[in-house]
Amino acid sequence: MRVGFIGLGNMGEPMARNLIRAGHRLTIYNRTRQRAEALGSEGARVADTPADAAADAEVLVTMLSDDRAVRSVLLGGQPEGTSAIDALAPEAVHMSASTIGIECSKELEREHRVRCQGYVAAPVIGRAEAARDKALWVIAGGTQENIERCRPLMEAIGRGITIAGEEPWMANLTKIAVNFMLATVLESFGEVYAMLEKSGMDLHSFLDVVNNGAFRSPVYANYGGMIADRKYEPAGFSLKLGLKDTELALEAGEAVQAPLPFASVLRDHYLQALAHGHGELDWSALAEVARHNAGVGRTQKAGG
Amino acid sequence: MRVGFIGLGNMGEPMARNLIRAGHRLTIYNRTRQRAEALGSEGARVADTPADAAADAEVLVTMLSDDRAVRSVLLGGQPEGTSAIDALAPEAVHMSASTIGIECSKELEREHRVRCQGYVAAPVIGRAEAARDKALWVIAGGTQENIERCRPLMEAIGRGITIAGEEPWMANLTKIAVNFMLATVLESFGEVYAMLEKSGMDLHSFLDVVNNGAFRSPVYANYGGMIADRKYEPAGFSLKLGLKDTELALEAGEAVQAPLPFASVLRDHYLQALAHGHGELDWSALAEVARHNAGVGRTQKAGG
Amino acid sequence: MRVGFIGLGNMGEPMARNLIRAGHRLTIYNRTRQRAEALGSEGARVADTPADAAADAEVLVTMLSDDRAVRSVLLGGQPEGTSAIDALAPEAVHMSASTIGIECSKELEREHRVRCQGYVAAPVIGRAEAARDKALWVIAGGTQENIERCRPLMEAIGRGITIAGEEPWMANLTKIAVNFMLATVLESFGEVYAMLEKSGMDLHSFLDVVNNGAFRSPVYANYGGMIADRKYEPAGFSLKLGLKDTELALEAGEAVQAPLPFASVLRDHYLQALAHGHGELDWSALAEVARHNAGVGRTQKAGG
Amino acid sequence: MRVGFIGLGNMGEPMARNLIRAGHRLTIYNRTRQRAEALGSEGARVADTPADAAADAEVLVTMLSDDRAVRSVLLGGQPEGTSAIDALAPEAVHMSASTIGIECSKELEREHRVRCQGYVAAPVIGRAEAARDKALWVIAGGTQENIERCRPLMEAIGRGITIAGEEPWMANLTKIAVNFMLATVLESFGEVYAMLEKSGMDLHSFLDVVNNGAFRSPVYANYGGMIADRKYEPAGFSLKLGLKDTELALEAGEAVQAPLPFASVLRDHYLQALAHGHGELDWSALAEVARHNAGVGRTQKAGG
Repeated sequence: MRVGFIGLGNMGEPMARNLIRAGHRLTIYNRTRQRAEALGSEGARVADTPADAAADAEVLVTMLSDDRAVRSVLLGGQPEGTSAIDALAPEAVHMSASTIGIECSKELEREHRVRCQGYVAAPVIGRAEAARDKALWVIAGGTQENIERCRPLMEAIGRGITIAGEEPWMANLTKIAVNFMLATVLESFGEVYAMLEKSGMDLHSFLDVVNNGAFRSPVYANYGGMIADRKYEPAGFSLKLGLKDTELALEAGEAVQAPLPFASVLRDHYLQALAHGHGELDWSALAEVARHNAGVGRTQKAGG
Repeated sequence: MRVGFIGLGNMGEPMARNLIRAGHRLTIYNRTRQRAEALGSEGARVADTPADAAADAEVLVTMLSDDRAVRSVLLGGQPEGTSAIDALAPEAVHMSASTIGIECSKELEREHRVRCQGYVAAPVIGRAEAARDKALWVIAGGTQENIERCRPLMEAIGRGITIAGEEPWMANLTKIAVNFMLATVLESFGEVYAMLEKSGMDLHSFLDVVNNGAFRSPVYANYGGMIADRKYEPAGFSLKLGLKDTELALEAGEAVQAPLPFASVLRDHYLQALAHGHGELDWSALAEVARHNAGVGRTQKAGG
Repeated sequence: MRVGFIGLGNMGEPMARNLIRAGHRLTIYNRTRQRAEALGSEGARVADTPADAAADAEVLVTMLSDDRAVRSVLLGGQPEGTSAIDALAPEAVHMSASTIGIECSKELEREHRVRCQGYVAAPVIGRAEAARDKALWVIAGGTQENIERCRPLMEAIGRGITIAGEEPWMANLTKIAVNFMLATVLESFGEVYAMLEKSGMDLHSFLDVVNNGAFRSPVYANYGGMIADRKYEPAGFSLKLGLKDTELALEAGEAVQAPLPFASVLRDHYLQALAHGHGELDWSALAEVARHNAGVGRTQKAGG
Repeated sequence: MRVGFIGLGNMGEPMARNLIRAGHRLTIYNRTRQRAEALGSEGARVADTPADAAADAEVLVTMLSDDRAVRSVLLGGQPEGTSAIDALAPEAVHMSASTIGIECSKELEREHRVRCQGYVAAPVIGRAEAARDKALWVIAGGTQENIERCRPLMEAIGRGITIAGEEPWMANLTKIAVNFMLATVLESFGEVYAMLEKSGMDLHSFLDVVNNGAFRSPVYANYGGMIADRKYEPAGFSLKLGLKDTELALEAGEAVQAPLPFASVLRDHYLQALAHGHGELDWSALAEVARHNAGVGRTQKAGG
């Protein structure tokens, strides 16, 4: 398939590589051209502009960091008519793998519809290692026909697919909900570790119970270990982006008048982390806020 | 081994049965004698009092609902000298499988020490089905010697053991911390489901992502399914006891000056559930509070 | 002075009336013309469009419900050039009494500056009765010169003025902060009353302590009484607008990375109130959420 | 009247002095005898034990820091029969001015009843300066007869009295509720100041609006000023005791299944303050937690 691919960050680059390896012909674009050129040597054509990447594509895949980036790259275009969306052929499909908000996804859906283009939201679960290992989980939203057209690409990057619904935004909301649940795990570890550490306990025997006795989940094993060992660099997914995702959950909740008290706690702790200069650490550093607030590492005084 | 066993509730009964099946000679006691007699027909001797169950035991196992019950059964005894702890022989070991607080566990440790008895805290992870299937995970706290003496019993009821530390309370704190993390999962499902349901989404395709794409954890599969289907009866572990466990976490946090904002949210939601008459449902009904507060099931009016 | 006045809601109408009574010549505009005509009989000229109200004014006063309304009325205008801001004369001053966000206020400042118009943010403290009684408190932000030009109007509607700073947005942020503090009082009353009522206590003797012993504040007397008596209609200020103000506080906090945990609780409770259909009640009905969650009024069952 | 007075702390000492000045004959006791002797020179007799202070009293006034202290002083007494409550004459009245919990107050009521002694709970509103200036507000709970017997003492220490109900604990719960509301004001100031300071605003013009435009309350003026100026020493009422009072509110709420989300936030912030060593500062230092978490005073970095 002729595939345009925009956005070669931590996640996008290994995804694009897996598409190349699966035999697709890629035209790739990245704001920082350097990252694109590495893949150029593996067989992709490097485009000069987003529009250039979109022009000839049967499917245009985007993997960008947030709503603003998606809007700017897809719809931006100065002068009028040079945006990626205008370059994309009618009948082509845009497969948007970015984690974006509901409103932004609905806007894309409208914009593609008026241009007779297809649109599939296909956010993915998994970090950079999973992207590299073809082990992402794809959440697909869109019409059955459009999803089928993108399926070979989804299969080339992931180990499984869930169809969230006929509406593309349903895939985005699913992804937002999953990321919210993941973030609650980070906060839970932060609070529990603070309590255990101040009580003089060993975190690794606790983790043994978590991993073998209770949750038996790769998510808990991975984050529980990272947080126990305070390995927050290099960031697989930055704390700053974590805040963005919690904001998306709060917005989605507000849109349907659903309070999310846990998301409110997360937001407050993310802001504290940012205020203390930790925005570029891995989002699992969210757990440091609870530890810091509990005074872990300070010399204890009796009675405070 | 000659084993005394006190407390034949949802968890205690299948645990005792597995001990019998492993060949141990059990003397059992339960406040409601009826539950004891069922096991009596499987080979256990039914005792009339806690002291009677303890009198001849090499190891006394207790599986009771809370601090108060443990104190009353172990230390209670009127007149003076007829409590289970006084009936227990010196050199015998008390293996306490109940989920109790740190202070209560430390008190037991002192009481046993002055009587030259051993004390092992051995709370377990798993619900009634896991108890039946010999699939509990045992968290053991105590001296190596005492733990070794109890090991055959632990192996007869569970699929694995983690040693939390030399101090018995360390096992209790580990269990409290795990239960706190489990309760955060219930709340997370409640909030996320409220958002998804009010958005018109299908919970089961969300669960497919949770179970296959993200967490891949039996805990998430089990509770995610129960909450999606609102199966809260019969209660495997009652909401009222769930509150007790969150209170234990808050106390343990306060003792070391560690704030636990998630536990505070849980406590508030548990209280709301109790105030609305749901104390006897399964603790996973905690998730109903977030749904109720979001107005799930109400007819929506535009703009509230 | 020749004054344009846009927005004759609960607050705007009595403010406009006091300006008329102070001898100013008003041209008034309201979306629902009927409300304007009542004042027309008291000497104001009724304008057909926002631009019409602005055209001849030395000072244009606006009192609108939110950012969107302010943007639409001031900057809106179709076709191009017919908006109120374009009708306003250079050298005229816009005195914006609405409670709006920081970003919106900064945008107005820029728009007025490029047109050589003055801009003063002048949000007010007080409810409709205070507006009627000339008892508002005006928070003024802007250059000293612009504020002096508006001072006669401020004196005609209020009992005092605080100058928040040279930047108009500083007045807006002050107002947002005050409204946030007011909302925390509503929530506090809700929680405390729930506890007292479920304990079987009389709220009015509690209020006697609050009013005479502790706070001695008209705010506590007023809201404490309304909430005790559940008088939420007619709404002086609607719950839906209360949520808007808390959102403004959260946004202002996020802009400077300041977590506001109390505002997060307020937001969650506002959303619950909206989800249950109470958006048009007075914002003091926020207190009903805490009462409802505590099950006030339900028949209690022992142990939940 | 012959008055026994136990507890000469920040509050107790000026209260006792006002009783002496009103012409009552005081026998005083304080754990640290030194504080008692200062008052001895003003006409009080200094007792050697709590029992000694109670022995001859028509009314025994106690002003102690918490449940534990009240229980130890009143009921303690080793050997049996030497406690203050046993020394107090039948028909005498105990007027308990301490801020204690509901359960403790109910226990005192029972203990006095079986001894045919009267019991009035009479906690007071006001800080040390109010105690000195005879400006406390007394919340009285008990039978009309007992309250009347204590009235001259209440009038000698305060500027007004509210009768909370026939049950002594009702006065305690009223006091707990008021202190909870006061603490929410501290937290509100903390959050709002953090937002204003990080936005570059002047706190004193904000306070002008709070004091003259909005709340017009001595409580807001006093704490708003202390927190703006960070004057937390000497402590009028320590942060450690503030936590105790929030715990009393949470307990009272739990007893009737009333969630108190604001109290939960307060508790978490108190614990953070204690964990960071601020337990002996004035309780208004609670506001520093919100400021600290927002990074007030840190050098800001763009984007965290």
